Amino acid sequence: MKKLKRSGRLVDMTYYLINQPHQLVSLSYFAERYQSAKSSISEDLTIVKEIFETQGIGSLLTIPGASGGVKYVPGVDQEEGDRLTTKLCQALMNKERLLPGGYLYMMDILGNPQFMNDIGKLFAAVFANQRIDAILTVAMKGIPLAYAIGSHLNVPVSIVRRDHRVTEGSMVSINYVSGSTKRIQTMSLARRSLKEGANVLIVDDFMKAGGTARGMMDLLQEFKAEVVGIGVLVEAEDVEERLVDDYVSISRLAEVNEKEMQVHAVPGNILNKLNEVTKE
Amino acid sequence: MKKLKRSGRLVDMTYYLINQPHQLVSLSYFAERYQSAKSSISEDLTIVKEIFETQGIGSLLTIPGASGGVKYVPGVDQEEGDRLTTKLCQALMNKERLLPGGYLYMMDILGNPQFMNDIGKLFAAVFANQRIDAILTVAMKGIPLAYAIGSHLNVPVSIVRRDHRVTEGSMVSINYVSGSTKRIQTMSLARRSLKEGANVLIVDDFMKAGGTARGMMDLLQEFKAEVVGIGVLVEAEDVEERLVDDYVSISRLAEVNEKEMQVHAVPGNILNKLNEVTKE
Repeated sequence: MKKLKRSGRLVDMTYYLINQPHQLVSLSYFAERYQSAKSSISEDLTIVKEIFETQGIGSLLTIPGASGGVKYVPGVDQEEGDRLTTKLCQALMNKERLLPGGYLYMMDILGNPQFMNDIGKLFAAVFANQRIDAILTVAMKGIPLAYAIGSHLNVPVSIVRRDHRVTEGSMVSINYVSGSTKRIQTMSLARRSLKEGANVLIVDDFMKAGGTARGMMDLLQEFKAEVVGIGVLVEAEDVEERLVDDYVSISRLAEVNEKEMQVHAVPGNILNKLNEVTKE
Repeated sequence: MKKLKRSGRLVDMTYYLINQPHQLVSLSYFAERYQSAKSSISEDLTIVKEIFETQGIGSLLTIPGASGGVKYVPGVDQEEGDRLTTKLCQALMNKERLLPGGYLYMMDILGNPQFMNDIGKLFAAVFANQRIDAILTVAMKGIPLAYAIGSHLNVPVSIVRRDHRVTEGSMVSINYVSGSTKRIQTMSLARRSLKEGANVLIVDDFMKAGGTARGMMDLLQEFKAEVVGIGVLVEAEDVEERLVDDYVSISRLAEVNEKEMQVHAVPGNILNKLNEVTKE
């Protein structure tokens, strides 16, 4: 690679770091990449760090020592957190998404990769300081959000299925009780899709009574895995008793009235969580 | 936003553009964002453009005139294209992924958001010059790749299902014949998940005889949509007659021998397509 000036290095470095979140990059790597002295690289990184932090892009951690380097940790500031939760709430309150039975059509929201990516960054910011080895979600509507979070945390995604396919190899299955309909259902996870003892973040698009999340927690026990947290895009309000109590949500449905054709949504608890993390 | 120096502007601008692919950003927007003269912004963009192009990040198109601006178009150079296809082929040739019946376990590959993102950028580079309004995939294994491509092309993703759920609203269903098993199956797409007349890129993880892709093409006719192209991660080799003939693949299985426990994979045709696009 040809020698780059500072201005060129800053552009390339920003691109490089953004694409390797939560990964340690040594100064030597950059020094070699740009054929520049480590002292110059160090000055470049000071500029990148300052801009990442003041512009709400995230933080650039410096790990000193021979095996040290820098690590980009995606972050979201309160202003962006507000913008995203508000945007989701407003989208949810569009009465045209009301379906028979009081269900909400959400595929236009879930089908927007840029928005999922932004929301994924918000979750990644909230869980940035926890050790997470994998994201677990359930097919199919949890998948877009799970990948968005996984890409910002730089960890793999495992997908729980409700059926059994030949392309999955041996699977571990459990029965669980749907929290709202009280029906017994089955969910399965390919044995080789998750390492034993992994620290796992559970992700889903929607949580009503939490039966699915509870099922995923039970399934994780079969893998001796630890649940680090639960993140959902939207939580329902009209729930008598939730089967899980520790979760993070972007939005909460305060009212879904099919007869009056009204949906009311409010921000979930993620802004509090973001606030806690930012203060740490 | 406080006034930024050139070094700071370059970092923030790179981040901003990378996150808004295929979207026109006016010089005035940047001039206001950084409280800088348009002439300075113009110089900044010249630097960004040069680095994007020399480092294989993509191109920065300049659209002149009052309604003009710049547009970041994700690109992949031949070297990176080679690296990605080789990486996939090597991963596929790991004999541990052989399952009974000669199926291949691929969820470790599909479950890696960073790799999917890189492959998605490769597809986005190949289809960069075509008008695409939406990505269409089928649940569930095509979803990760579809979102990766959608995020680089900045277009929404629509997901075809094989079942009918209450959360989808009215759906359009068709029957199709699986190309390899010759069985009749059903696939459905929510009426509101795709605009009539859209230009659509079909994406899937695996293509054998092409029955699913053919089915998606038939389904798209119900939406008066145009098929712009078909992109698959892996194509099978042992196919007597393929039901679709114009598609782009990253890798092709040249041999899957369950008895000898051997898998042989070779690069698909995407490198030729990339070469054609780069020459344009």
